[in-house]
Amino acid sequence: MQFASLDDIRAFCRDLPGGDQRFADMAAHRQQNLTKPPGSLGRLEELAIWLAQWQGREKPRLERVTIAVFVGNHGVASRGVSAYPQAVTAQMVANFAAGGAAINQIAKAAAAELCVVPIELERPTHDFTEAAAMSPEEYLEAVDAGYRTVPDDCDLLAVGEMGIANTTAAAMLCAALLGGGAARWAGRGTGVDDDGLARKRAAIETALNFHRGILGDPLAVAAALGGRELAAIAGAGLAARQHNVPVLLDGFVATAAVLPLARLDASALDHCRAGHVSAESGHRDLLREMRLLPLLDLDMRLGEASGAGVAILLARAALACHAGMATFTEAGVSGAGD
Amino acid sequence: MQFASLDDIRAFCRDLPGGDQRFADMAAHRQQNLTKPPGSLGRLEELAIWLAQWQGREKPRLERVTIAVFVGNHGVASRGVSAYPQAVTAQMVANFAAGGAAINQIAKAAAAELCVVPIELERPTHDFTEAAAMSPEEYLEAVDAGYRTVPDDCDLLAVGEMGIANTTAAAMLCAALLGGGAARWAGRGTGVDDDGLARKRAAIETALNFHRGILGDPLAVAAALGGRELAAIAGAGLAARQHNVPVLLDGFVATAAVLPLARLDASALDHCRAGHVSAESGHRDLLREMRLLPLLDLDMRLGEASGAGVAILLARAALACHAGMATFTEAGVSGAGD
Repeated sequence: MQFASLDDIRAFCRDLPGGDQRFADMAAHRQQNLTKPPGSLGRLEELAIWLAQWQGREKPRLERVTIAVFVGNHGVASRGVSAYPQAVTAQMVANFAAGGAAINQIAKAAAAELCVVPIELERPTHDFTEAAAMSPEEYLEAVDAGYRTVPDDCDLLAVGEMGIANTTAAAMLCAALLGGGAARWAGRGTGVDDDGLARKRAAIETALNFHRGILGDPLAVAAALGGRELAAIAGAGLAARQHNVPVLLDGFVATAAVLPLARLDASALDHCRAGHVSAESGHRDLLREMRLLPLLDLDMRLGEASGAGVAILLARAALACHAGMATFTEAGVSGAGD
Repeated sequence: MQFASLDDIRAFCRDLPGGDQRFADMAAHRQQNLTKPPGSLGRLEELAIWLAQWQGREKPRLERVTIAVFVGNHGVASRGVSAYPQAVTAQMVANFAAGGAAINQIAKAAAAELCVVPIELERPTHDFTEAAAMSPEEYLEAVDAGYRTVPDDCDLLAVGEMGIANTTAAAMLCAALLGGGAARWAGRGTGVDDDGLARKRAAIETALNFHRGILGDPLAVAAALGGRELAAIAGAGLAARQHNVPVLLDGFVATAAVLPLARLDASALDHCRAGHVSAESGHRDLLREMRLLPLLDLDMRLGEASGAGVAILLARAALACHAGMATFTEAGVSGAGD
C-alpha cells in the first residue's frame, strides 16, 4: 500500500510534490500573444495555464482523460437518511457496466475513459452514530483503492462517486471539520423528504457528539465519519498529486471527500479544480470555505462525476484555443493601442 | 428580401410561429424515467426539453450545428470608443478565414460549422451621435443578410459578432430601450482605458439626446442606434424562429442585438437561450432584464460567438444523456421510495 499509516498521509501533505510554475508562466505568456484582447477568454485561459502547470507542458494535452467513479455503501443508511434503498448502489454499478447511466453518456461526449470502482459494497461502513465508520486500516485500504485507480500517464482526472446515503457522510465530514452543525450541511441529497432530512440531521448531530474527541484530527475524522468511496477519492487526489495529474472534482460528496486533505495543508488541492457547484445545498458554502471557484453552475445534483465530466468539455475547449489560435504576429492583426 | 419594411418585422413578431409544447412534454416525460433522481441533471434536462420543443422531436439531434459570426464596422468608432483601430475588424475576418481565431478552435471542438458573415465593412454605419447609424432600408438589408445565413435544416444555431466599437452600439441599444443612461450600460469592451470609457459614455449620452424622438420604437432604435452585425443577428433570430431552429446567444452585443425583438413581443426569444454571461459589465443586467438565464459564467468577453460556442458542448452533453441513458425499467434500478 502507498500509505501504511495515517502518518504517511500526513507526511505526504507536509511535503507536497509537483506543479511547475515555469510552465504556467510559459502558458500565460502564450495566452497574451494570441489573437484576442488579453484575458478575454476568461476562465478558459486560466484552465489552460493550470493544466500547463500540472502537466509540465507549455501546450498541455488531453489524450488520456480518466473519469473515476468510486462506489461505497454506508451503515448510516439504516437510519433512513436517503430516498432510495441501499440496493440501488449495486444496481447503479450494474447500470454503469451496461452503459446506461448519465456518466456513461457524458464520458463518451467528453472522449474520456470511465473507470467505476466499487469498494466492498457487501460490507457497508459501520453506522457512525454508534461506532467508527471505518478503522484506520479499513480507511487506508479504501484510500489505496483510489490511489491505484489513477494511471500515471493520465492527462486529466475527473473524480466522482455513487453510494446511497453518502451525502450524509459528506455533510458529516463538513460538520466535523468546518463547524456549523448538521443544519448548515445536510441537504436533500437525491431527494429525501422532510422526515428523512430530519433523520439525516439527527444522525449527524448524534455522531458529532459521539465522536467529539477526534474532531480536531482531519484524517481520524475521514476514517470514523466518512465512507469508503470518499476515502478513495482522497486517495485518487493524492495519487494525482504524486503523478502531476490535474483533477476536476465533482459535486458535494467529492469535494467533502478531499476536505480532510485541505485541512492538513492549504495547498494540498492546488492541482484540483471544482468542476461545478451542485444544487445540493451545502456545496456552494463548502466551495467557498475551500476557496474553490466552480467552473459550471447548472443546478446538477447527480454525482457520478457528471458535473466534473461536463467540465472536461471546458478543458477541451480551453486547450483547443490555447494550442490552435494564431498569435497577433502570425495573423497580422493589430494589438490593442497599435 | 424576407422583410420589405419594418412593419413586416412587427407583423412577424405579433404572430410568432413555431415551438411545439407536445414535444417538450414528451421529452420531459422521458427525463422522468431515466436512471437518475428526477431533476438531478438540472439545466441539462431543461436544455434537452427546450431542444425537443423547438426541433419538434422527442429526441432532438445535433447533426447540423451552425455558428454564425456577423461582422460590421461602426461610424462611432471615430469617437475613440475602442482600444483597437477599426482596421482590426477586417484583420479578424482574415484571421477567421485562416482558422486562427478562438471561434475556429471552439467550432472544431463543438463539431459545428462556422459561418462568418462580414457586412459591408468598407461602409461603416454613420456616427450615431450626429445621424442615424442606418436608414431603415440599410437596416433591412443587414437583417436580411442575417436571415439568409440560417440553414433551414439547422439543428442548433449559435450567434455572435465581431466589430470594433460594437459594444458601444450594444450599450446604445440598451440605454435607448431600457433606460438608465450610458453609466448603466457602457463597459470596457475589449479593454478601453478610463479616457476611452468616458468618450464612450459621452457618445451614448449625446446620441440619446439627438435621437430622443424615436426611443419608444424598438425597430427605429435598432436602425438608428445599432449596427449592421447587430441587425443581422436579429435577422438570424427571426429566421431561426421561422424554421424552428433553437438559438444560443453569445455575449453582451449578441444579446443587445435581439433586445429590440423582445421589446416587440415578450415571447419573441422563447427559442433562444443565453449561452453565457460575459464579463462585459452590462451583460448580467441585460440578461436579467430579458429574463434569460445564462448557461455559462466563465468571465469570457471575446464575442465571436465564443461563449455560445462553448455552450454547444453543454447541449451535446445534455442530448447524450437524454438519448443514451437507460430508463429505470430497462436498467432494473429501484426508483425513489421503492
